[in-house]
Amino acid sequence: MSISEIECFGPIVSQTRELVEQQLERYLRLDSGCPEHLASAIHYSLMSSGKRLRPLLVLAAAHVCDGHIPDALPAACAVEMIHTYSLIHDDLPAMDDDDLRRGQPSCHLAFDEATAILAGDALIPLAFEVIARDIRPAEIALRCVSELAIASGASQLVGGQADDLQLQHLNIDLAHLEEIHRRKTGALFTVSLRMGCICAQGTPQQLESLSDYGKHLGLAFQITDDLLDLSGDEVKIGKRTGKDSKRGKRTYPELIGVQASKKLASDAAENAIQSLACFNQVADDLRRFAKFVVNRNF
Amino acid sequence: MSISEIECFGPIVSQTRELVEQQLERYLRLDSGCPEHLASAIHYSLMSSGKRLRPLLVLAAAHVCDGHIPDALPAACAVEMIHTYSLIHDDLPAMDDDDLRRGQPSCHLAFDEATAILAGDALIPLAFEVIARDIRPAEIALRCVSELAIASGASQLVGGQADDLQLQHLNIDLAHLEEIHRRKTGALFTVSLRMGCICAQGTPQQLESLSDYGKHLGLAFQITDDLLDLSGDEVKIGKRTGKDSKRGKRTYPELIGVQASKKLASDAAENAIQSLACFNQVADDLRRFAKFVVNRNF
Repeated sequence: MSISEIECFGPIVSQTRELVEQQLERYLRLDSGCPEHLASAIHYSLMSSGKRLRPLLVLAAAHVCDGHIPDALPAACAVEMIHTYSLIHDDLPAMDDDDLRRGQPSCHLAFDEATAILAGDALIPLAFEVIARDIRPAEIALRCVSELAIASGASQLVGGQADDLQLQHLNIDLAHLEEIHRRKTGALFTVSLRMGCICAQGTPQQLESLSDYGKHLGLAFQITDDLLDLSGDEVKIGKRTGKDSKRGKRTYPELIGVQASKKLASDAAENAIQSLACFNQVADDLRRFAKFVVNRNF
Repeated sequence: MSISEIECFGPIVSQTRELVEQQLERYLRLDSGCPEHLASAIHYSLMSSGKRLRPLLVLAAAHVCDGHIPDALPAACAVEMIHTYSLIHDDLPAMDDDDLRRGQPSCHLAFDEATAILAGDALIPLAFEVIARDIRPAEIALRCVSELAIASGASQLVGGQADDLQLQHLNIDLAHLEEIHRRKTGALFTVSLRMGCICAQGTPQQLESLSDYGKHLGLAFQITDDLLDLSGDEVKIGKRTGKDSKRGKRTYPELIGVQASKKLASDAAENAIQSLACFNQVADDLRRFAKFVVNRNF
């Protein structure tokens, strides 16, 4: 399966992926006062061949809530900036020490460690800048700022990575592992869907359904990530495999075995689909997406 | 001169410093879902004995624009969070490699490198979270988000640090050095004053005057910092001295000599005071503050 295969599982996805790429490029060009070396590092990491799953979730959620896609585009780009910063920092030698990301050398190897730290640091405020400038009315923009700030903060995204590092080599149970991944992966998946719904001024029921979908989808995604780390193809995945066990990281296959992990991922995808019961066929892309997430091989 | 001496140069300052400390503590307590180890590192760095100059500038600006101090308090805390994150990351081994900060071991030594990176990463969204939650109306909050995001972004705060690292050991002129420091120090000073004015719904003329004041004040502050690095007392300053030259960093005294640097700092403070011409004695604290910045010995 390749990047192009993401695009075939729904018309909304194939139309919007390019929109996201173009808008990200545009946002980087706007920041003309940035030193050249730093700008290159930011561009290198942000414009590499990411799957753009989180932006697609933002836009798909806006679509199912009958919103106008361009209204949610700044939020889609913002969540990709946060995701990219987290990859850059997670790859640092002091963190997960990964040398390959999105099929190319990690930012700190392509540039240097200081530049990678700073590139990550710069992407965080940029995410909030684009929301504040380009989403209207102000109340909607402010809700997005608040939701994204919490999702990327100490109790969610950053807290998940902190726990993941702290708990290496420790005996933890399945509930604890799920908690880490709810933060590390689930938080950004869920906030993507929530921001899409908020930008489309969806109903509270739609917001709740999409949040549930995001929670289950995040779990399905993470278990599949663990399985791919065990048996996937580095070239296709674009990052090193087999590193989790070397680092002493706790994973689903290690804790409950491969078959049980596959079952858990598949159940999570099914739960995600069930969460969409309040939507008619307008949500079929999201339903296909849940299946894609567990069946992907990259 | 000690921290308590900051408090004697104006009634607004002595009243508000404690307010900032209390509110920062409150904000950290609110983030109850944060892993304990990470929460300790964030608390260690944020609640250490900082001078809180930037929050004081936010509140003083709100005061001179006839605003209500508590309305600007979230912005004051937000800028201190951004400042603290930048100190944590600047001190990292891959960056300036400093072991002493605010009179105590740097965050990566008191904890570890990964935790220090994550503590900094967590403080950035927290700054935007408190603005989005606690400043109203939404339009004012959104302007603060936008201003703070730009000031802490790739073309300002982060860009300044990137340039500072890149240009070590290179021959640069005074204009270039001023440009680096306009970003590294000036950006947060200026945005502090601007957010205070924005929260107080000040006039465009007041906003411009305070921005000019911040620009000159930032320069005065940075030149004095360079002078203190050369001849200051580590115990009073709370960070290592003499490191600039060891690291090959370009400084004012090195470029133009000690006496000329002192004159430049004093001129910048005078320019800062001149910028306040549109304010009556309500701005006397800010005028005293400009003198304090160049006369401080910590």
